[in-house]
Amino acid sequence: MRHFLTTRDLTAAQFEALLNRGEEFRQGADSDALSGTHVGLVFFNPSLRTRVSMEVAVSRLGGTPVTLSVGSDAWAMEYRDGVVMDGPAAEHAREGAGVLGRYCDMLGVRSFPEGKDYEVDRREPVLNAFARYSGVPVINLESPLDHPCQAMADALTIREQLGKTTGRRVLLTWAYHPKALPMAVPNSFLLGAARLGVDLVLARPEGYELDVDVVRAAERLAAESGGALTVTDERDAVYEGVEVVYAKSWGALADYGEPEAEFTRRAKLRDWRVTEARMARGRNAIFMHCLPVRRNVVVDDAVLDGRRSVVLDEAENRMYAQQAILEWLASENR
Amino acid sequence: MRHFLTTRDLTAAQFEALLNRGEEFRQGADSDALSGTHVGLVFFNPSLRTRVSMEVAVSRLGGTPVTLSVGSDAWAMEYRDGVVMDGPAAEHAREGAGVLGRYCDMLGVRSFPEGKDYEVDRREPVLNAFARYSGVPVINLESPLDHPCQAMADALTIREQLGKTTGRRVLLTWAYHPKALPMAVPNSFLLGAARLGVDLVLARPEGYELDVDVVRAAERLAAESGGALTVTDERDAVYEGVEVVYAKSWGALADYGEPEAEFTRRAKLRDWRVTEARMARGRNAIFMHCLPVRRNVVVDDAVLDGRRSVVLDEAENRMYAQQAILEWLASENR
Amino acid sequence: MRHFLTTRDLTAAQFEALLNRGEEFRQGADSDALSGTHVGLVFFNPSLRTRVSMEVAVSRLGGTPVTLSVGSDAWAMEYRDGVVMDGPAAEHAREGAGVLGRYCDMLGVRSFPEGKDYEVDRREPVLNAFARYSGVPVINLESPLDHPCQAMADALTIREQLGKTTGRRVLLTWAYHPKALPMAVPNSFLLGAARLGVDLVLARPEGYELDVDVVRAAERLAAESGGALTVTDERDAVYEGVEVVYAKSWGALADYGEPEAEFTRRAKLRDWRVTEARMARGRNAIFMHCLPVRRNVVVDDAVLDGRRSVVLDEAENRMYAQQAILEWLASENR
Repeated sequence: MRHFLTTRDLTAAQFEALLNRGEEFRQGADSDALSGTHVGLVFFNPSLRTRVSMEVAVSRLGGTPVTLSVGSDAWAMEYRDGVVMDGPAAEHAREGAGVLGRYCDMLGVRSFPEGKDYEVDRREPVLNAFARYSGVPVINLESPLDHPCQAMADALTIREQLGKTTGRRVLLTWAYHPKALPMAVPNSFLLGAARLGVDLVLARPEGYELDVDVVRAAERLAAESGGALTVTDERDAVYEGVEVVYAKSWGALADYGEPEAEFTRRAKLRDWRVTEARMARGRNAIFMHCLPVRRNVVVDDAVLDGRRSVVLDEAENRMYAQQAILEWLASENR
Repeated sequence: MRHFLTTRDLTAAQFEALLNRGEEFRQGADSDALSGTHVGLVFFNPSLRTRVSMEVAVSRLGGTPVTLSVGSDAWAMEYRDGVVMDGPAAEHAREGAGVLGRYCDMLGVRSFPEGKDYEVDRREPVLNAFARYSGVPVINLESPLDHPCQAMADALTIREQLGKTTGRRVLLTWAYHPKALPMAVPNSFLLGAARLGVDLVLARPEGYELDVDVVRAAERLAAESGGALTVTDERDAVYEGVEVVYAKSWGALADYGEPEAEFTRRAKLRDWRVTEARMARGRNAIFMHCLPVRRNVVVDDAVLDGRRSVVLDEAENRMYAQQAILEWLASENR
Repeated sequence: MRHFLTTRDLTAAQFEALLNRGEEFRQGADSDALSGTHVGLVFFNPSLRTRVSMEVAVSRLGGTPVTLSVGSDAWAMEYRDGVVMDGPAAEHAREGAGVLGRYCDMLGVRSFPEGKDYEVDRREPVLNAFARYSGVPVINLESPLDHPCQAMADALTIREQLGKTTGRRVLLTWAYHPKALPMAVPNSFLLGAARLGVDLVLARPEGYELDVDVVRAAERLAAESGGALTVTDERDAVYEGVEVVYAKSWGALADYGEPEAEFTRRAKLRDWRVTEARMARGRNAIFMHCLPVRRNVVVDDAVLDGRRSVVLDEAENRMYAQQAILEWLASENR
């Protein structure tokens, strides 16, 4: 069974083929790859972009989306084995995912981290339970560690904007935000951009290191694609000569599960913001963000509303990337 | 870009053409005007009739509805420019509406008034943000000031029931209700009915005046169509000789944002109710209401269950009116 | 107007024909019986299996589902006649159901019991209001007393697993669960299985009697089909020689509306659990449950994960049973 849980599982050729197909969809390619099929979209957490872009992508391929917005309270799901289920969880993933797999031909799953114990969250228990028990192909619509549909859309956008990507300088910079957000997007961006042969720079304050396995995987992928990954806690000079600025906030791994300590650490970092002055140090750099974005907190209006902001194109590319992913899964699992 | 935000934007010929087309849909006309398109339906507030009638209308035209029921809490959206977004709003309408416009070919938006400051609400900030930033045609599914789909359904219903409308006497009467409701429906009814050449009477207690701009616009439209608009605070004699009774409750403009004062004012007005005795003063008058309606509070059972009640036909006409509106927007924006 | 409110309304021939057609759908039969139609699915209570299996069933028949997840809070609906509606309910079923019937060609309704007064709940006020006022065929998606779609799926599953059913021994056993659940599933299972000519045994603790009318109807149906129904409070020996074990928990009728008394009664019944030892007394019995199921509370892992557990097949049969029901209603009401 072929799933789409992370871009890490893809060979270089598969990754490249998905991007090429995504570009064809952007240019208007037709496909009825999902004709007569039903794709369940299970949201344990709220979603706007992912939900709408997936529903439209499924529909454009001739399929029928079936969306379930389940609150984590409304449908607490047990995923551990051997448990006596006399607590809040009324259903085990073996049955919950198993049943959905009987009704749907494919399943998309969004499940955020609990944010208490990193060792639990990094195993992505809900996503993996669906992959294990549903009996159908599963697409990750954002898990604790990864957001591979976003990664594909981001890579599509960089190729769309820059053309040839080898050797171009790409900055992923942490940004201030009032809340400690998940790490799925920076992780997945790193893993996707590292495939493009770019000179990739990750800038984040002390304590905001990303998962060490993810960073090592990105380093390896960067090397394989003829690029490189550098990590720094510098927040100004890193803009020098970059052609892509990707901003994102996330919570401090150093304070995982300790919101007060995280809040104190974060409070001093309000200056990690994308400004016109910083952008001016780049080489006519485009500005990227996965959205939603807090204006004048993460990035200044002048940058976001400027002519080098490509955030809406990036969001639109979600749809094309997902069409490519859905079509590929349908063909691989035929 | 042609939107459908209020019937005020329509010429007399456009209004007439939409009603004619609505009648054709009621008689079973087919259309695939939305074939291959996706229509996003964004509800910042709950909806039953509007949501189902829009989903079915889109589907009957060959399109695919994508419904988003976003609580105002769940997805607070900033619409002011230049704000530092470190409060509850995680997304600005520029991005929120902009992204949805990339995925959908058309958007419907429901956004009720906040009910605090009339000067804010009457600018219809959320609806206008969608019209400005989404890049696609926007349909108003009820805003603080207007409910133009209801207005078209109401006009369709009056024509269906009365045939020739010129010179017929139509009463819009305020009614008691335990809560202070928005003014969108009475506003939009006035603006729509004023197009029909009828002798229109608005009866409401002191303090329950409607927006002065709306009333002036309705007076002008009534004059243009050969009819007239009269306003009164009389609640009994106004039924004399009417052929249409349209009942609706709304909050006192005089007490906007002051719920306790409004409650006190309202408490004395329980007798503003549609009874059989009042209906008997009309000329075999039909009874209309946009629904939902509180029985024996707004209107007596005997009237609502009587043979001159057309509330279900009126609700059914929502679907046909919306088919006409959707088809027209698709053709105007091709 | 033909509805599908309970299997009790079906003749033996109709019941048999629905099962046969369900089997054809399981074997891949095609049908476009709902082509061009819209089926409203109204959930006053949460749903996973029923919602997804109905959406897919409608879609497989060429129809378009329109799902409404209305919280009982969000859309309290009055169903009593003659009431002055100045309380929480903003809409009466006459209008709520009436309007939905104007938009949709068929309606499915889920409405759980309130759990306060059994005399109120057993009249199934919300379901019956929809049947009376909507003007279109109504399918019961679980009411206080009945879950007839589940009953059809259960009967399909027994036939699928056992082949010829006459004279086979089938056990419906109460099981412990931390909450007092509704009785719709055990009722509907009894009424459905009684049609199969089986030797049916109902085992439940004292106080957990099922509705006397339901039990009598099941006895009569069992007799008509050449089988029999026995009721006992034995929890071990009843497994002797059975070929089907159907486990389900429900609240004590003896303590209806008195949760503390029910909790006290229930607390002593933790041993009513399906274990391997109990299953071993049967004749290679299959294990059935409507799901969701609490592992190691209602049934042990070893049974649920064993090769005689058919719970996922049973859930899958919901889809085929519902296709048969939808197709039948469409043809009966044409």
